[in-house]
Amino acid sequence: MIGLDLAHEYIDSVMTKKNFAIVGVGLMGGSLALKCRKLGLADRIVGVDSNPVHATTAIEMGLVDEFMSLEDAIKVSDVVILAVPVGIIAAMLPVVIDHVTHQVVIDMGSTKSALVKSVEFHPNRGRYVASHPMWGTEYSGPEAAVESAFQDKAVILCNAADSDADAVAFAKLMFEALSMHIIEMDAQDHDLHAAYVSHISHITSFALANTVLEKENEDRAIFEMASAGFESTVRLAKSNPEMWTPILMQNRENVLDVLNEHISQLRKFKSCLEKENWEYLNELMSKANQIKRIIQ
Amino acid sequence: MIGLDLAHEYIDSVMTKKNFAIVGVGLMGGSLALKCRKLGLADRIVGVDSNPVHATTAIEMGLVDEFMSLEDAIKVSDVVILAVPVGIIAAMLPVVIDHVTHQVVIDMGSTKSALVKSVEFHPNRGRYVASHPMWGTEYSGPEAAVESAFQDKAVILCNAADSDADAVAFAKLMFEALSMHIIEMDAQDHDLHAAYVSHISHITSFALANTVLEKENEDRAIFEMASAGFESTVRLAKSNPEMWTPILMQNRENVLDVLNEHISQLRKFKSCLEKENWEYLNELMSKANQIKRIIQ
Repeated sequence: MIGLDLAHEYIDSVMTKKNFAIVGVGLMGGSLALKCRKLGLADRIVGVDSNPVHATTAIEMGLVDEFMSLEDAIKVSDVVILAVPVGIIAAMLPVVIDHVTHQVVIDMGSTKSALVKSVEFHPNRGRYVASHPMWGTEYSGPEAAVESAFQDKAVILCNAADSDADAVAFAKLMFEALSMHIIEMDAQDHDLHAAYVSHISHITSFALANTVLEKENEDRAIFEMASAGFESTVRLAKSNPEMWTPILMQNRENVLDVLNEHISQLRKFKSCLEKENWEYLNELMSKANQIKRIIQ
Repeated sequence: MIGLDLAHEYIDSVMTKKNFAIVGVGLMGGSLALKCRKLGLADRIVGVDSNPVHATTAIEMGLVDEFMSLEDAIKVSDVVILAVPVGIIAAMLPVVIDHVTHQVVIDMGSTKSALVKSVEFHPNRGRYVASHPMWGTEYSGPEAAVESAFQDKAVILCNAADSDADAVAFAKLMFEALSMHIIEMDAQDHDLHAAYVSHISHITSFALANTVLEKENEDRAIFEMASAGFESTVRLAKSNPEMWTPILMQNRENVLDVLNEHISQLRKFKSCLEKENWEYLNELMSKANQIKRIIQ
């Protein structure tokens, strides 16, 4: 950990352009690349991606300047962004910080406990800033990248006290430059909360899609009737399983708790319908209306 | 039932302005009023509403010209639109068609079987066209009305063979003038399909809101993390229970079937998490991805 004075000195210097390495040039990494270049935060952007099709697309779209191996990309960069599925981040992070000297390593994963744990006792732990930008779509790959991605969204920084002050300072400046607001949180709290406000929404959407697709085998006509309400509740079912399997693996216990609670809430609706208890059904829906306090 | 020749003669005349009675000047009725006036379909629009606050707002917003009792409104109108909750439509419809002479009666309810059944053997049955415009939002009341509401959406006409040809012809012209596309369907099929592509989405959303609100009592911080995915799956939970209780009452059996299927789909996800069966979890999500064939 370096001292706060040094950190402030660093802050004065960070608005100079940096060399970025972006590992995983898809929806998240690609969007970050677009915006960092637009803002003039990035001098050179080097991509790392195991998918040659994504790499070609990312070059064609101008998201990154060139592709390199992970090790070479780290060497030529000041900032290393990890934007691959969280299973790969967990495996890759200890290797990445083996190789860092001055670089700041920032991940964009949807889970945090397993990631901070993977480097808990590493001598270079301080170079890593655990972050979760609260933005995403159901699409993936570089062609899904959008410049306006992070605008006015929250980003969670976890266990920042375990990161070097200059690394945290840079991460904050970068996310603020992206017009994000920063929330600091313990990694375990993050994972619990993410289960409630993100991971369960994906499970309900996947399950709803399967519910309706089971029926669709019998009758395609029903989709002609699908309107905005249906689309809204089911759109997350288009999300990439390669991204979501490791998230649900890493956050298994929290997600199971929330899923059990959700099934028990659905059973209350079922019981009202079975018993024709319309008063209690109305009450359950009125209670749910209180979500208005939270979302506009 | 009048003959097709008479119906064609009627079609030629329908583009002249009509007097409308709109019963229930809220989200649906108010939006229809706005658009019919804009298109020049409506000459005078008379409102009927038991809620004096809604009536005042509707007059102030210029949605309707004046309010009358139901009986008076029918007398002075050519077209009677029923846009109240489906429980009220079921009770009101036999009374309304008791009073019609030449008027066309069109409802906008989200269920159809109970409504067509309520007037099945009525001598004026032919004046009624059972319709369900596939548009809505989680908001209610006249202030929720929007002129663009029905643009490019589907509208289901049910059991049209039981309606007089001139009444169906007018309903089709009106909905086409609203830029809607018309699907004809049996009322029972409609209710089954609506359970899959609309009613279940509302239940999952209400239940998800309650799942998260249970937790929120313990910790408000989680909502700072809520992003677009959460909002998308939970927004229908803001829907009006006074509208949704009668829908779920009338479509109880279909909704129970779909809800049982949905809970069993959720249990598959639960079982994968419990048994750490990541391969099957991935498979379930990949299967759900097929919803891409249906929604953009």
